[in-house]
Amino acid sequence: MIQNDLFLRAHLGQPIERYPVWLMRQAGRILPEYRAVRSKLSGFKELVETPEFATEVSIQPVDLLGVDAAIIFSDILVIPEAMGLPYQMIENKGPWFENTIRSQAQFDLLDAQIDVADRLWYVFEALKQTKLALNGRVPLIGFAGAPWTILCYMVEGKGSKTFSESRKLLYTQPKLAHQLLERITEVTIEYLKGQLASGADALQLFDSWAGILGQEQYEEFGLSYIEKICQAFEGIPFTVFSKGAVASLAQISNLSCSTIGLDWNMSMTMARSLVKESKTLQGNLDPCALYGSSDSIIKETKNLLNSFKSPRHIVNLGHGVYPDIDPEKVKIFINTVKNYEISNI
Amino acid sequence: MIQNDLFLRAHLGQPIERYPVWLMRQAGRILPEYRAVRSKLSGFKELVETPEFATEVSIQPVDLLGVDAAIIFSDILVIPEAMGLPYQMIENKGPWFENTIRSQAQFDLLDAQIDVADRLWYVFEALKQTKLALNGRVPLIGFAGAPWTILCYMVEGKGSKTFSESRKLLYTQPKLAHQLLERITEVTIEYLKGQLASGADALQLFDSWAGILGQEQYEEFGLSYIEKICQAFEGIPFTVFSKGAVASLAQISNLSCSTIGLDWNMSMTMARSLVKESKTLQGNLDPCALYGSSDSIIKETKNLLNSFKSPRHIVNLGHGVYPDIDPEKVKIFINTVKNYEISNI
Repeated sequence: MIQNDLFLRAHLGQPIERYPVWLMRQAGRILPEYRAVRSKLSGFKELVETPEFATEVSIQPVDLLGVDAAIIFSDILVIPEAMGLPYQMIENKGPWFENTIRSQAQFDLLDAQIDVADRLWYVFEALKQTKLALNGRVPLIGFAGAPWTILCYMVEGKGSKTFSESRKLLYTQPKLAHQLLERITEVTIEYLKGQLASGADALQLFDSWAGILGQEQYEEFGLSYIEKICQAFEGIPFTVFSKGAVASLAQISNLSCSTIGLDWNMSMTMARSLVKESKTLQGNLDPCALYGSSDSIIKETKNLLNSFKSPRHIVNLGHGVYPDIDPEKVKIFINTVKNYEISNI
Repeated sequence: MIQNDLFLRAHLGQPIERYPVWLMRQAGRILPEYRAVRSKLSGFKELVETPEFATEVSIQPVDLLGVDAAIIFSDILVIPEAMGLPYQMIENKGPWFENTIRSQAQFDLLDAQIDVADRLWYVFEALKQTKLALNGRVPLIGFAGAPWTILCYMVEGKGSKTFSESRKLLYTQPKLAHQLLERITEVTIEYLKGQLASGADALQLFDSWAGILGQEQYEEFGLSYIEKICQAFEGIPFTVFSKGAVASLAQISNLSCSTIGLDWNMSMTMARSLVKESKTLQGNLDPCALYGSSDSIIKETKNLLNSFKSPRHIVNLGHGVYPDIDPEKVKIFINTVKNYEISNI
């Protein structure tokens, strides 16, 4: 049994005493305690691949910040690696893949049949250990990248402002793009099922590069695969966060998931009018609001809370917390949410 | 008199025989002839600051691609430099400012009174020479960065994925942000007036980083200053291109400008329903569509043209043309627009 299950109840539209709150990237560089663990290791990947360390940093924000949910420390790029496309995480630069998928021949070099439990054992093990260490205090969130975002990295081979190589593929080799998305989708479903079996209580899909596609292309190459994944997890607390896809909010609101994550450009009011009471909304304070004074953070957070007209909300930032934010400021945000009375809704 | 004034007529809602077409960044790296000029010079800034060379590359797409308008080759960052904040353009990296504006003291170091005609003489001279060289063939477009985007660079000092330093300022020192935006706005109005006096027939404001602000902040720190600029140029063909600001389309449609530029994420149908027949829409083929086959480019371009339900359109991409696009593909796009019959609208 989970002692503080506010987060799960909010997902499913059950009664809550107050809004739950957590932060994307809460297990990360904002905490000095995270940086202390990280500094002992050879790099980011050692942290991702060593369950003991991943567990330690996943638990930190629960102990230190008082969030209502833990999220497992991991990386969305473990999926391409499990498919046979390894990557390096280069300090201050980001991910880098030696090989990319821009042709049928390159696609055919991917491993056809993979044992997800074997290749991603370290994520499942980290979930099990984190679940134990949490000891039922708060729910544990598992996650994966959405297929379009994973394709972006597999095709581009690194971060990019425009991901023009990835978008080029949609015009030049749409069949190959669909084949790759299909494959990523299959592996992702298996991966997320494994996460549930290892102790995750809720799941989130991150579509970080949703916003670079026009509406029709996002429907065809993004949302249709997300929907397949959602359908495999109906009834499970499941969040889809399509960053930047403001133009596709109507389509997103029709997905078979319990919860939609909003970035800080998306209007809470518009999203609510689209989903009515059928879905929970997660978000969406501007991460930069936490640079403000304590008074300003309290004001901005209350403005956000006052805009809610439903109990179906999970409070979060509109993107991952920026690494140079003072953890004390994060606590002000969290405590403002915790002290907010929702008896009037 | 301008022989081909389709572009100007489309701006003002006057009758046109066919839709005009041009491309953002048409004077640039896509053309081998541009690269030949550029390779003789010390760097990008020498090209911007030498009217003869700027003229040569501004004319190239008119001669080589057959576009319906020329745009002066320049850079939006000439404005911060004129205000007393010089920058370098670092090859393969982008702009870099030695000093930034993050405090009142730094703001106070900017030059209080500047002679725009003196500091930006090279842009005005390039416009005059380009106007002469065009010899009335097509209209000449002048441009500037929108105040918010210029602030982004002055505060951040370089490109960024999140421009979090710039956005931080809005929470920590909103008065300073307004002071800086006010100052940029004044200088920009004077600069654009100088461009008109030097031969520009139409103007465009580029708000490249519009999309990183939430709706309310974009209204306060972005659109209010754009509106001041628009009001100084009523009656002039004037385009506002707020890249990424899908969520603010309703507010943008109320600006006092003749034309709104749309990126490829923005829905032409929605934009038309907002502006009715009061404004011209410019855009918005996905720049990546030009990576496709000739047949695919023709199909995508016709789809776009078929979506127009008004004569008030200027055809363009939804962003600057990517530098590795084949100029022959650009010609297919342009010729598809030129051959399209609009007698039925």
